Amino acid sequence: MSWTLTADAIGDLARGAAVLGTGGGGDPYIGSLLARQALAEHGPVTVVGLDEVPDDALVLTVAMMGAPTVMVEKLPSLDEVVAPVHALGTYLGRPVTHVACAEIGGVNSTIPVAAAAALGLPLLDADGMGRAFPELQMVLPTLYGVTASPLAFSDEKGNVGVLQTVDNHWTERIARVACVEMGCSVMISGFPMSGAVARDALVGGSLSHSLAIGSGIAEARLAKTDPVAATVERLAGREFFSGKVVDVERATTTGFARGRARIEAAGDVAALELSFQNEHLIAQSGDVTFATTPDLIIVLDAESGEPITTEGLRYGQRVRVVAAPSDPRWHTAEALAMVGPAYFGYDLPSHRFDGTPERQLVEAGA
Amino acid sequence: MSWTLTADAIGDLARGAAVLGTGGGGDPYIGSLLARQALAEHGPVTVVGLDEVPDDALVLTVAMMGAPTVMVEKLPSLDEVVAPVHALGTYLGRPVTHVACAEIGGVNSTIPVAAAAALGLPLLDADGMGRAFPELQMVLPTLYGVTASPLAFSDEKGNVGVLQTVDNHWTERIARVACVEMGCSVMISGFPMSGAVARDALVGGSLSHSLAIGSGIAEARLAKTDPVAATVERLAGREFFSGKVVDVERATTTGFARGRARIEAAGDVAALELSFQNEHLIAQSGDVTFATTPDLIIVLDAESGEPITTEGLRYGQRVRVVAAPSDPRWHTAEALAMVGPAYFGYDLPSHRFDGTPERQLVEAGA
Repeated sequence: MSWTLTADAIGDLARGAAVLGTGGGGDPYIGSLLARQALAEHGPVTVVGLDEVPDDALVLTVAMMGAPTVMVEKLPSLDEVVAPVHALGTYLGRPVTHVACAEIGGVNSTIPVAAAAALGLPLLDADGMGRAFPELQMVLPTLYGVTASPLAFSDEKGNVGVLQTVDNHWTERIARVACVEMGCSVMISGFPMSGAVARDALVGGSLSHSLAIGSGIAEARLAKTDPVAATVERLAGREFFSGKVVDVERATTTGFARGRARIEAAGDVAALELSFQNEHLIAQSGDVTFATTPDLIIVLDAESGEPITTEGLRYGQRVRVVAAPSDPRWHTAEALAMVGPAYFGYDLPSHRFDGTPERQLVEAGA
Repeated sequence: MSWTLTADAIGDLARGAAVLGTGGGGDPYIGSLLARQALAEHGPVTVVGLDEVPDDALVLTVAMMGAPTVMVEKLPSLDEVVAPVHALGTYLGRPVTHVACAEIGGVNSTIPVAAAAALGLPLLDADGMGRAFPELQMVLPTLYGVTASPLAFSDEKGNVGVLQTVDNHWTERIARVACVEMGCSVMISGFPMSGAVARDALVGGSLSHSLAIGSGIAEARLAKTDPVAATVERLAGREFFSGKVVDVERATTTGFARGRARIEAAGDVAALELSFQNEHLIAQSGDVTFATTPDLIIVLDAESGEPITTEGLRYGQRVRVVAAPSDPRWHTAEALAMVGPAYFGYDLPSHRFDGTPERQLVEAGA
């Protein structure tokens, strides 16, 4: 089913995407500004379901790469947003037919809207993760053998590059150092795939889902019901902690916003520690692990239910913390090797959103 | 005038180029191996004078970028050498007609020979500097408005990238961080220019000149005359110091081999201090400055007259140190801003090869 995305829906879309972005993906407000500008200048965008994309479509993902802490200070222009798509189309020698989101998250769900509007192309109702992750190879298409490269990147100064690498880790490594040198935030376009492959490899319905979550929060507030409860229900997740942010450590290193946040509850309850690298990765309190990557850890404002990104965490905020299941494909052994706690340097097994440790995946011969 | 370059001449070419390379450009032996292999597999290379290159030729430079200390341990394959030329030709959508050296120096005068042989293309008897410099924008074509980009780079793993940047400094910055991430040594091809532009912007006769210097050293040894004197005469330079290497400090940082060497003479003579970043930049003894970049500072083995690269400097070597004039275009104010001592962080005016300070260039209104 295809539908039309107009500027009116951008606020809800960005809000819902920031919920699924699990703290990452950049400030939803920043991306909204750009999407609204593009829709005002170029008209509405047609959003196409995965069931409708032709087998021979040429789909490219469009995203901002870099540290969210920098993104909020360096809003890209529409020229910068479309530059990598043009560069990649020229490199491939074929017309691009559809734009897709690499991830769902504040900036990275609205930047593709801006790109689709400015390019006059349809946008897929889908993304590569069903959430946000910090490194570019961390998408389900990697598990389907889709290569990130050729991948193009561009900055606000007008510099553009195209990479053709031997695997998706090398795309990440080279694009990341270029990104850091270019100011810690660049626009990228990559993961070229056919419509047939996109149908298998992407997470379908992400934009509709984001819109429903975002409008659900707004509607709950209007109806004076609990917006956090509305989100928990829609995600089939659970609220596991509420309290006050009492400490945030954050450093922008090697192109990422890395850090930890400490949240204290009232009464005799141990504090919650959240660890993040752009996105929230681990939620622990003392010996208790509430949830870990790849399941979603979401920090919401206690009253308004608005999602709070990792770079937006501040001392004194009253928050409620929610965990929710990720796309089930993230729980395969191959996927966990790519995005599980161990990859990020934590000596901890993956824990599902309900707090249970990931069932040990028995390897042949073990 | 065009001539044919065969494997027999590679030793002399590499030796002479290492003299002009002023300590940089990588180990001449390494580049020789690759050039000999390419000539053996693909036949001799036609070397074409700048007077003969057609106006509408498409000339690309080919070079190795990185730290010479790493280059000696990571010899590229012929596939890696031609990969960036193919990538750039595809990007430009036009057939490449001629290959040129970006600089004269051990590896970077023989790698283009290997590329020309493997590609079946003529090689220009020319280069972009008449010497070697550590950063890629430091070529005379930059002064003629030739852009380094589109520039392609490739590594031994098979990763390839193409950059299109807003100026040559940005090509250097982005390619350098990619180079460091890819292992501190990559093959690059860039500075696309027409034959007409190449004729103005390049230094003509560099390969013939290198060959003459290299064979002159060999002939002097055979004739039992002084090979260092033969080189000094051919360069119209001067020998200003001889002694023993007593100390070498060297670090491979940010993709360069940076360091200092101390050379002690017999008797009551103050020691010579050489400062280098891939290439020798400054030759000083106490308060006396013998020569600085952009003129050439060349360290030769005291007996054999063989050039010694900065990464080949060792304690105990008996050496003689020569200064020689660079291409006169390096002494313009614009060029000195790009390659003078101040650019490299030295609070010192440029000194010519004869030890005189660069005549102050009076700016309008000063």
